[in-house]
Amino acid sequence: MHQESIHIDNPLASEIEELPDGGLLSPQGFTAGGLHAGIKKRKLDLAWLYSQVPAAAAGVYTQNAFKAAPLVVNEASIAVEGSLQGVLVNSGVANACTGKQGLEDAYAMRRLLAQRFGMAEHLGAVLSTGVIGEFLPMDRLSAGIAKIQAFESLRDGQSFEEAIMTTDTVRKRYAVSMTIEGTRVFIGGAAKGSGMIHPNMATMLAFVTTDAAVEPSSLQAALRSAAQDTFNMVAVDGDTSTNDMVLAMANGMAGAAVLSTEHPEWEKFCAGLQIVCGQLAKQIARDGEGATKLIEVWVKGAPSEVDAKKAAKAVILSSLVKSAIFGTDANWGRIVCAVGYSGASVDPDQVDIYLGDLQMMENGMPLKFDEDAAKAYLQESEIRITIDLKVGGAQAVAWGCDLTYDYVRINADYRS
Amino acid sequence: MHQESIHIDNPLASEIEELPDGGLLSPQGFTAGGLHAGIKKRKLDLAWLYSQVPAAAAGVYTQNAFKAAPLVVNEASIAVEGSLQGVLVNSGVANACTGKQGLEDAYAMRRLLAQRFGMAEHLGAVLSTGVIGEFLPMDRLSAGIAKIQAFESLRDGQSFEEAIMTTDTVRKRYAVSMTIEGTRVFIGGAAKGSGMIHPNMATMLAFVTTDAAVEPSSLQAALRSAAQDTFNMVAVDGDTSTNDMVLAMANGMAGAAVLSTEHPEWEKFCAGLQIVCGQLAKQIARDGEGATKLIEVWVKGAPSEVDAKKAAKAVILSSLVKSAIFGTDANWGRIVCAVGYSGASVDPDQVDIYLGDLQMMENGMPLKFDEDAAKAYLQESEIRITIDLKVGGAQAVAWGCDLTYDYVRINADYRS
Repeated sequence: MHQESIHIDNPLASEIEELPDGGLLSPQGFTAGGLHAGIKKRKLDLAWLYSQVPAAAAGVYTQNAFKAAPLVVNEASIAVEGSLQGVLVNSGVANACTGKQGLEDAYAMRRLLAQRFGMAEHLGAVLSTGVIGEFLPMDRLSAGIAKIQAFESLRDGQSFEEAIMTTDTVRKRYAVSMTIEGTRVFIGGAAKGSGMIHPNMATMLAFVTTDAAVEPSSLQAALRSAAQDTFNMVAVDGDTSTNDMVLAMANGMAGAAVLSTEHPEWEKFCAGLQIVCGQLAKQIARDGEGATKLIEVWVKGAPSEVDAKKAAKAVILSSLVKSAIFGTDANWGRIVCAVGYSGASVDPDQVDIYLGDLQMMENGMPLKFDEDAAKAYLQESEIRITIDLKVGGAQAVAWGCDLTYDYVRINADYRS
Repeated sequence: MHQESIHIDNPLASEIEELPDGGLLSPQGFTAGGLHAGIKKRKLDLAWLYSQVPAAAAGVYTQNAFKAAPLVVNEASIAVEGSLQGVLVNSGVANACTGKQGLEDAYAMRRLLAQRFGMAEHLGAVLSTGVIGEFLPMDRLSAGIAKIQAFESLRDGQSFEEAIMTTDTVRKRYAVSMTIEGTRVFIGGAAKGSGMIHPNMATMLAFVTTDAAVEPSSLQAALRSAAQDTFNMVAVDGDTSTNDMVLAMANGMAGAAVLSTEHPEWEKFCAGLQIVCGQLAKQIARDGEGATKLIEVWVKGAPSEVDAKKAAKAVILSSLVKSAIFGTDANWGRIVCAVGYSGASVDPDQVDIYLGDLQMMENGMPLKFDEDAAKAYLQESEIRITIDLKVGGAQAVAWGCDLTYDYVRINADYRS
């Protein structure tokens, strides 16, 4: 019943080397660090990322109507300029639901960053994560920014990863490398996120760096596509934060050819980007609030990718499926039920369902299965549910975690 | 901080008398009962409802693609015939995901019912609720049906209400009365449902009787509309069962004029029907798995009813809002966040949020509020959240319950 490491299927994966211990600093020409500015009581709360040269930039932002102030600032400048050199992140306060004052604070935070790094303001991005509805403590933030030292030489990815954390219990990082026209390039990443949303702690942030050279609009398209298949397929509790953002920077310092959607090796770069995003997404799911297990839901045989994603997300979001897996209960009825109400186009008389390698349902009818084997499988730390709709060729994967007493405890007591 | 009994706003409500102790048998000409047929170990598991004369009938069915066999049977005949005289319900086995055999069993169950009541088969409706993926025990069912006695005189609504229960902890009933052209008519109801879905226990069933005379297609329209504003606005965990069904029978025995959408008092009848459905819906929400509190979410000032419903449902479904209320934590950030991702059209700078009478947010900005008063309010058993979007005149209400340790316990251990 051993389960292989979970991967997004991609025929180009064999050309990509995975670096589980890599991160934002695996690509050349980036520095990063983190420090304690006093926004939180004791923990690191201010992180920065810097590229020696301006990098092509792309961003993907929350769809929540209450978009936090820093996202508004970044979205405007990245869309126009398509480049970034420095990134500043604070944890502890999300600067969300803070109105006009919050927007002014976000611009001021970016101005301080630009001054510290001696760059144009539009080359800076600012991100905040933490309590919603509180204003940034600008005095502490300003003093913290003044303490950023040796930004051209400091390569402290670990402090960066720590300083962006809120209720995360582990740091999250990943990297890959590949060759582009024979030149080796790296893509690295870091992320935070523990509930899909954790307000007042908001929420998922992810950062991707690469020393590949990428034309900005192509980078934007690649990041959007990767996020749709990875971060957007993670569901801890179905809540979408005000502050979610994924940021990518490509500084070209590997010296490889400039990539764009027209380049023959473009798909390889995209596959690498998707692996980094996928691995970060799974780390977020595994670190879901109160989680004891990572759950992966594969839907295949769907008439379209949209249908596959609808079905996968309905199952991964079902509180009933999540709590059954916590209780190591092979309750396939809840899985089929979630598929049924997902809105995906299904033929009920065709559906097969597997828990790991154990088939529970065939052509819409329950099968007798080995309850002991199912129970044993559900005690593992990674659970895979496979649903074959058998009506088409499209597939999708979603990741989540089990629903536990600790989820309720964490969220019932959060502000108290 | 006392809270009034929660009602759906309706200007016609003053013309309707509410009968909280009434039920299916409040209207004239109906009989009902329940008995133990041995499908469950000890509890009542077979319920019947009978009208002295064939009644105009309407049905609303689950949207789940895996529709259980009895629903398929009823939907076909009610759509064609528009009338019913007898209803048979078993609990313990849902006859869902049972394929061709399940459909044959449902037809056989209806045939047995028709024989027992001496009526045409199409005048019978059959409903099943319980474990998904198991076949009906036809021998016990048949023996149970043979035991139905005195169906023309037995008026035992309590046994009916008990025999349809699965994990419900309380019986659910309500009735209203009003005059139609000076003649008094009654509308009564009963329901079961504890999780919005409880697979393998499936799930919500509701029954409405009236001695008003109603043209069948008008009754169908009224029931669909009432269900949309009531049963479809209840969310315990967001899962939609394979077996959900609402059934209405109008036997005309009060001797009042025949109602249709054209009748001047049609809206009054619809208001009464909506009150019965709304009260049953709230009873289902309050009896949600593990629930300690009923939560009501009012959204007003929405640009459309669709927007209002989207926002209300997102808030009532948010695991974060639900667990905060369990923890008596006035975490308004989670409410605004759910509104933001609901897909409802909102202007973030306009939104006001209230917890009971305490305002937490004004024009999208947090307000200072009395934390002790909020905590005290959250210790009550009925919690009202009001969200004023202030951009239009539409409104909606949704009902749910808090997310508790017991929800996880019930659903983690369910099949074990």
